[in-house]
Amino acid sequence: MTVEVCFTPKLFGDITTKDNYIVVLADILRATTSICAAFQNGVKEIIPVATLEQAKELKSKGYLVASEQDGKKLDWADFGNSAFNFTAEAIGGKTLVYCTTNGTRALEIAKSASKIAMGAFVNITALSEWLVREKLNVVILCSGWKNKFCLEDSLFAGALAEKLLSHPGFENCCDSTHASIDLWNIARTGLPDYLEKAAHRHRLQKLGLDDVIPYSFTPDSTKVIPVFEGGVILDKG
Amino acid sequence: MTVEVCFTPKLFGDITTKDNYIVVLADILRATTSICAAFQNGVKEIIPVATLEQAKELKSKGYLVASEQDGKKLDWADFGNSAFNFTAEAIGGKTLVYCTTNGTRALEIAKSASKIAMGAFVNITALSEWLVREKLNVVILCSGWKNKFCLEDSLFAGALAEKLLSHPGFENCCDSTHASIDLWNIARTGLPDYLEKAAHRHRLQKLGLDDVIPYSFTPDSTKVIPVFEGGVILDKG
Repeated sequence: MTVEVCFTPKLFGDITTKDNYIVVLADILRATTSICAAFQNGVKEIIPVATLEQAKELKSKGYLVASEQDGKKLDWADFGNSAFNFTAEAIGGKTLVYCTTNGTRALEIAKSASKIAMGAFVNITALSEWLVREKLNVVILCSGWKNKFCLEDSLFAGALAEKLLSHPGFENCCDSTHASIDLWNIARTGLPDYLEKAAHRHRLQKLGLDDVIPYSFTPDSTKVIPVFEGGVILDKG
Repeated sequence: MTVEVCFTPKLFGDITTKDNYIVVLADILRATTSICAAFQNGVKEIIPVATLEQAKELKSKGYLVASEQDGKKLDWADFGNSAFNFTAEAIGGKTLVYCTTNGTRALEIAKSASKIAMGAFVNITALSEWLVREKLNVVILCSGWKNKFCLEDSLFAGALAEKLLSHPGFENCCDSTHASIDLWNIARTGLPDYLEKAAHRHRLQKLGLDDVIPYSFTPDSTKVIPVFEGGVILDKG
């Protein structure tokens, strides 16, 4: 099986991997880390929606809704999109509507995949073991930032690719996978310092939202495997 | 001034840099290294064309034409696209038509730039000094391979970005610039070994065309600054 890294959704149409692949979606400083946290705290299912209108409509039907703009919770929503919002008390056993324009677009772009799973440092080991068992090619799709390459998602891609390639069944197929692994190996021993470089971290800092950063880069706090199918995300871990 | 790296032409529409920028086009294992070699050997000007039909038409009008497919010279052309084809005897003082689908597309994509220069390891120091004198933002546009990230162009981007950022007038503006510089600093001390990783090198090897690789990664064999304007490329060095 091959392991390919796609640095932004805009490049997904040109991936080398053609058939029988699982897409691992990575949006480390928001959606995929938060979704893992929600399942770890017992959410039953997550409905991703692309627009505020869809989120508001589902709110009016009684759903719990997570929605933010420019990193801040919208006043009509129940939560922002931060992992720290989703406590067991708030979401245990419930359905959560999670509004994410970029994440929903990435799910749409990746619909040719056999399966779409959510990846983050918080579930990286459980995810890699699940991927080994699935025995399919893997494409790690970084959300990036405004269609651009971003460091935090690419570092995660390198960390996951390295884990997978330590199994004899997997092989590397492209330069982006090599580059991700090399960047991860530069960053891994001093992640906080390295991430001072990441432009998106600075955006979060300006908004006072960088409290989630240590959590987002601490591996293996959960064994959940959020998988998108039939319009909802469920835990297959 | 800012220094931005764009990993493939497909991402150019989303660059952060908005105004007053020079694009440095990088296609290290073909076009930009070869174009520098041609100017070093005295070519008067280069006309880039996108299609074999355009190249054939200009051939019938008496122009010297460089054109290849899958890395091999086409039988009706005067040269392939390798840097080694352009000897002083063959091209000194003449106009050369250079057929490059990807390169021409990149020139079209970058037309909003104030200027478009061709960058390669072979002219990197002269180019960086010229860019410092130009006092404009710089966007390094990697040609990539089939719209994808490729290592060799990204390493060049990192090497050039590092040179520019050593001048006080330049600042970094994005994660891709950071990543390129980090990759360059991993690769620089053992470039041949590092490039064993690059998928495109393996393609060239299969075609028996890897003889240009040592030349392509040896810095500063020339001081030419090929600049595209008005449909032709001229040396502004």
